[in-house]
Amino acid sequence: MKLMSFNVPTPVGTFTRIGAGLGQVIIDLNMAYARRLADQGEPQPRRLADAQLPSTMSEFLAGGASAMNAAREALTHAVHLGAFATGPAGETISYDPGTVSLTAPLPTPSSLRDFIAFEDHIAATSKRRGQPIPPEWYKAPVYYKGNHRTIIGPDQRLRWPLRTQKLDYELELACIIGRTGMNISERDASGYIAGYTIMNDFSARDIQFQEMACRLGPAKGKDFATAIGPCIVTPEDIPDLAALEMIARINGEVWSRGRFGSIHWSFPQMIEHVSRDETIYPGDLLGSGTVGGGCGLELDRYLKPGDVVELEIQPIGILRTTIAAPDERSA
Amino acid sequence: MKLMSFNVPTPVGTFTRIGAGLGQVIIDLNMAYARRLADQGEPQPRRLADAQLPSTMSEFLAGGASAMNAAREALTHAVHLGAFATGPAGETISYDPGTVSLTAPLPTPSSLRDFIAFEDHIAATSKRRGQPIPPEWYKAPVYYKGNHRTIIGPDQRLRWPLRTQKLDYELELACIIGRTGMNISERDASGYIAGYTIMNDFSARDIQFQEMACRLGPAKGKDFATAIGPCIVTPEDIPDLAALEMIARINGEVWSRGRFGSIHWSFPQMIEHVSRDETIYPGDLLGSGTVGGGCGLELDRYLKPGDVVELEIQPIGILRTTIAAPDERSA
Repeated sequence: MKLMSFNVPTPVGTFTRIGAGLGQVIIDLNMAYARRLADQGEPQPRRLADAQLPSTMSEFLAGGASAMNAAREALTHAVHLGAFATGPAGETISYDPGTVSLTAPLPTPSSLRDFIAFEDHIAATSKRRGQPIPPEWYKAPVYYKGNHRTIIGPDQRLRWPLRTQKLDYELELACIIGRTGMNISERDASGYIAGYTIMNDFSARDIQFQEMACRLGPAKGKDFATAIGPCIVTPEDIPDLAALEMIARINGEVWSRGRFGSIHWSFPQMIEHVSRDETIYPGDLLGSGTVGGGCGLELDRYLKPGDVVELEIQPIGILRTTIAAPDERSA
Repeated sequence: MKLMSFNVPTPVGTFTRIGAGLGQVIIDLNMAYARRLADQGEPQPRRLADAQLPSTMSEFLAGGASAMNAAREALTHAVHLGAFATGPAGETISYDPGTVSLTAPLPTPSSLRDFIAFEDHIAATSKRRGQPIPPEWYKAPVYYKGNHRTIIGPDQRLRWPLRTQKLDYELELACIIGRTGMNISERDASGYIAGYTIMNDFSARDIQFQEMACRLGPAKGKDFATAIGPCIVTPEDIPDLAALEMIARINGEVWSRGRFGSIHWSFPQMIEHVSRDETIYPGDLLGSGTVGGGCGLELDRYLKPGDVVELEIQPIGILRTTIAAPDERSA
């Protein structure tokens, strides 16, 4: 499944709902499930659907495998009913993507950890400082904790942050945790992954490196925004992660191209490491770190106002961000 | 006010409520406010009280100055009614602290940033590595982002984490944000502080330093637990932050003693820095970092199973944690 979050503006406010891509339409999963329950004769289909298959991504993920199975049933039922089906009281089930706007598939992750798991990337950044890769990097997957409150979605504008002179993108794949756990083994870890999305860990390199001199890692230099999207693809639809091609284009020009298979530390290894004596939760977001060559820092090229940044990883899609001018005040 | 969170076990489940210390009792603020509304003739006192002065700390803080004023009114009303007053339908307003258990005053902060704002501490840790204080440290307050999902409260046991050989405490004051904002000036920043609490940024030094060699800052070495409490004291009850004495005792022996006034970067300066092009939210937690001499690392002394760690900063109180044995599995 391709899971997404989208806004539905109505006279009584804007609602953010989760959907699944089905050919050229977006199926409202909660509403399709309510229709399925109504067709089974349930007297309270909306109430049961809200409990079993909540309409926001955070609550949906908290429902674990049971909510995910309900989503598959809802989607199957929507296919069975066809394009003109409606909810129990005539509500909309199928949306034309042109009439709604996507938000970040998970607008508020419960946490954000971003790794540096590609050897090519740490080799390049270490070399840039005239140093070898730290031997500790080979001992365990290393990460910093990002800002889970500054997520932006597909086709959003990024306000130019902090008067940086070196605004950069980072081309990453991220996984979203779908189950609570602690001390999870690498072997069991794939069962904790709800799906994958594209992540752009935007970075202000000048500020980031000034901060890192004090040894606590990056903070302001990365915390202003992280883009994710356009959707979350569940694991069964990406049978071979290693084969994924990762591409970054700036204004249509390819700046970065890599293969996910060049990663050194796998997501299951990251999950084993993070969950050691520490609980992970549904909605936790783990970024892979930049693929080798996957950022301007490695190319010594940076972003400028007006640039359109596209990160493409199929079958997830294209995560597009437009860089706004420094004086544009709304994000 | 001294704000706290406490558990009330009942036949229909355990409820976590916010209270304010009043002499020898804890006043349930939401219930006292409901009683006040009932006494004013409101037909729906509980419903109005839940909206105006919610019963959990996160929701209460989201209510900003308006909820804080309601809390003061509730407390004044409770004083006026006396010790035997009850809620609109006979519910309990005054609790004997011996009959309830305190939790962390803010069990799930919306985020956790921990600074290194005391010059004595960064001087000591830099010297330990044979290096001077990085000049960047004097340019802006530096922090890492902690794990806001592993908060423990007063009088809780800390499970021995990660088979560390160097478990350490850190003696810190923390402030809690009470208002949403961005690009807040140092001058305006104090208006964004809801109150102060004691913070123990427990650290596994061996793991922390191995991680920090990879330049992304600490992660697993600190993310297993952070203790806060026993309560949140609102700013009007700490007229002179600089005068606060900070003491750490291990099994009753004083290991650390310092004054908050020795801090280099103030909380308003931290807030100005963090909020630059980045939104801060009610419930965000900012730790000061360790006061000079305020951790075992500076003394080359570490914790062992069974130790009782007490951090004292009056008028906030004493934050006590007992270190459990490595084989004790429940936190």
